[in-house]
Amino acid sequence: MRANLMPDLDLAARLFAALRARTHDGVGITREAYGPGERIAHEIVLGEAATLGLEIATDHMGNRFLTLPGADRAAPKLVVGSHLDSVARGGNYDGAAGVVAGLAAVAGMVRAGFTPGRDVTVMAIRAEEAGSWFPVSYPGSRGALGRLAPGELEVRRRDSGRTLAEHMAEEGFDPEAARAGRASLTRERVAAFVELHIEQGPVLEAEGIPVGIVTGIPGSRRLRAARVLGRYDHSGATPRRYRHDAAIALAELAHRLDEEWARLDAQGRELVCTFCVLATTAEAGFTKIAGEARFELDVRSIERAHCDALFAALHRMVPEIEARRGVRFALGPETGSQPGLMDASLREGLARAARDLGIAHRLMPSGGGHDAAAFAAAGIPAGMIFVRNQNGSHNPDEDMRMEDFAQAAAVLQRWMAEASA
Amino acid sequence: MRANLMPDLDLAARLFAALRARTHDGVGITREAYGPGERIAHEIVLGEAATLGLEIATDHMGNRFLTLPGADRAAPKLVVGSHLDSVARGGNYDGAAGVVAGLAAVAGMVRAGFTPGRDVTVMAIRAEEAGSWFPVSYPGSRGALGRLAPGELEVRRRDSGRTLAEHMAEEGFDPEAARAGRASLTRERVAAFVELHIEQGPVLEAEGIPVGIVTGIPGSRRLRAARVLGRYDHSGATPRRYRHDAAIALAELAHRLDEEWARLDAQGRELVCTFCVLATTAEAGFTKIAGEARFELDVRSIERAHCDALFAALHRMVPEIEARRGVRFALGPETGSQPGLMDASLREGLARAARDLGIAHRLMPSGGGHDAAAFAAAGIPAGMIFVRNQNGSHNPDEDMRMEDFAQAAAVLQRWMAEASA
Repeated sequence: MRANLMPDLDLAARLFAALRARTHDGVGITREAYGPGERIAHEIVLGEAATLGLEIATDHMGNRFLTLPGADRAAPKLVVGSHLDSVARGGNYDGAAGVVAGLAAVAGMVRAGFTPGRDVTVMAIRAEEAGSWFPVSYPGSRGALGRLAPGELEVRRRDSGRTLAEHMAEEGFDPEAARAGRASLTRERVAAFVELHIEQGPVLEAEGIPVGIVTGIPGSRRLRAARVLGRYDHSGATPRRYRHDAAIALAELAHRLDEEWARLDAQGRELVCTFCVLATTAEAGFTKIAGEARFELDVRSIERAHCDALFAALHRMVPEIEARRGVRFALGPETGSQPGLMDASLREGLARAARDLGIAHRLMPSGGGHDAAAFAAAGIPAGMIFVRNQNGSHNPDEDMRMEDFAQAAAVLQRWMAEASA
Repeated sequence: MRANLMPDLDLAARLFAALRARTHDGVGITREAYGPGERIAHEIVLGEAATLGLEIATDHMGNRFLTLPGADRAAPKLVVGSHLDSVARGGNYDGAAGVVAGLAAVAGMVRAGFTPGRDVTVMAIRAEEAGSWFPVSYPGSRGALGRLAPGELEVRRRDSGRTLAEHMAEEGFDPEAARAGRASLTRERVAAFVELHIEQGPVLEAEGIPVGIVTGIPGSRRLRAARVLGRYDHSGATPRRYRHDAAIALAELAHRLDEEWARLDAQGRELVCTFCVLATTAEAGFTKIAGEARFELDVRSIERAHCDALFAALHRMVPEIEARRGVRFALGPETGSQPGLMDASLREGLARAARDLGIAHRLMPSGGGHDAAAFAAAGIPAGMIFVRNQNGSHNPDEDMRMEDFAQAAAVLQRWMAEASA
């Protein structure tokens, strides 16, 4: 029965081409969350779903559910998918690959005349790229799960300055339902969620493996608006003992924290520590000692304790540097998220699908955060498939080979067929 | 005869008030070199000089020479003064105080009916603030001394993008004469140059001393357009060993170079080392590892060897960091200047004037560069008087107490009277 079950790669190629053509910004791909780019991506996906004859539904958040009905419509369904927004000037595959893979898998089922045992739904999720648009984690999936705090609807999009609720309403969705905690997905109605996504990192590429099965999604501790305050003075006329140099205080903190990370890394503790922004301000200039600097710090690990160890080091260093250098750190609010472990039996199911198809794969932690973490946090078994990709992600050079995508989509489809039985 | 010789503080107050009123930019003071602000400052100063009946001359560079004729007009003259340009959003006293002090001293002579033994000239110098306008050291004074290289007339003003020669011509001056090496001041015709200037640093304020007598002006070694090139990657998905993090590479260089400076400083070696700018670029953002960072480094000392020691450390560190972190440093062109020692007998003459007047003072190196260094380099005996000031310089909060200015101007005037005899 399943010998001829294959993802529809023509459909996948057509979708990727349409997405690229219609959301290209001149440099890369821009699909603003609850904005024109994301709206266009949803339109493209809905068009293919309609052609395939899938059931189409939209929830209060604007998430789309594209369903191939199963034999037992009352059974808890399988949901696969990912997000359709992108960072500004990003690549074509981050997020979209998961939705396209789901549709390609379902289209292959339709073509093969395969009826799953239970409903199989491709979910196109809203607004995952928190770093670029709304400073809140996974509003689309968490809103679908009824787990968005009312205050989170009031966060403002970085570019427009308007709130998530305002943007949702403008696109025709229902922030009031989100405030009231409505859920379009529940533990009772969803048997499992699987997200296919490009790796975003270099591990699969470096190791020559096309597919990753994800063990977990890291939690994070983050400083997104931290500052160092010193005093602007003349760079020539101010002896060392009279300085309040914000730039060098920040350089010291960053370098010493990086050394702390190197120590933890050498002990085999998996975490990452990144000063994404580290900068004197526009006031800085030649012949001036920097009176201010700012930084954005991103610490992530599957093990919350590793994040805590690095932040403990940070909080030891800061007062010591302040006292010695005559500066003040204004760390600002800390944000972050809890780690999300992928479901063990789901992980095994995905690995078995890969083995059955003879596709090389490895287990690996995720580096980035993903909507799958929101499902795991809501108690729904969640899994992820990574596709090897090139040139990282969140940049216009992000790339992915279609043969790798085909293998990953095949793993997804095989798992869907098995798990829906 | 000199008992009643005092600087004209009413004139000084009037000049400072006019300069502040007419070159205020809404935040601080802006007097663009060869631009509107500097032009206005020259007009104000020329008006007072005309009222005083001084001889007024302008050279090919646009420097002004305001001369009180002496008894022996053939004798080499004394020149006092400083620059009238300022940094953008700077303070009212940096530069201007030296010209105002010279005019106040001369006005006091006129009022007292004092005729110096030789000509006494107040010089209003052009374009000293190399950090803000033209990236070349002391074009006004070096042009007056016939020591500007032709290529230096082609450097471009940072804000306008037009060349020094173009700006000079627009203001009605003569870049061709500068190219040809014309000198309006020579060793034969100038007995000495003394520049009064605010300290710009915190030393006199911290030590409770109103006046400094400068021992020397530091030389410098500078990187003004240095970059670190790495690779933008996802901050969550890129393990430590795969990173090419430009931000942390720069933080390491800055912190380790600062530690090297701390070691030299502890040995009593006088130098300063400043990362004036240290920054990821506009491409940086949350969830990205920084693929690029830039910095501006300013190293200064009266002892050239101290600058060399720090740059040797830098050049040892760079390839080591490059190899370990997978980044590349593009240090860009190095600029700099030689140290300028103040004339020993002039220094003693200034100290004697202060002692005679009972004014507290100390010997000290300059931190910043000043036009006096150009005179010293040209073989003209040069000296400097520092005035205690508050809140540093090159910022709108820069301040100076008029009673300190009065004491420093009195030292200048006393020296002028003695040295012109």
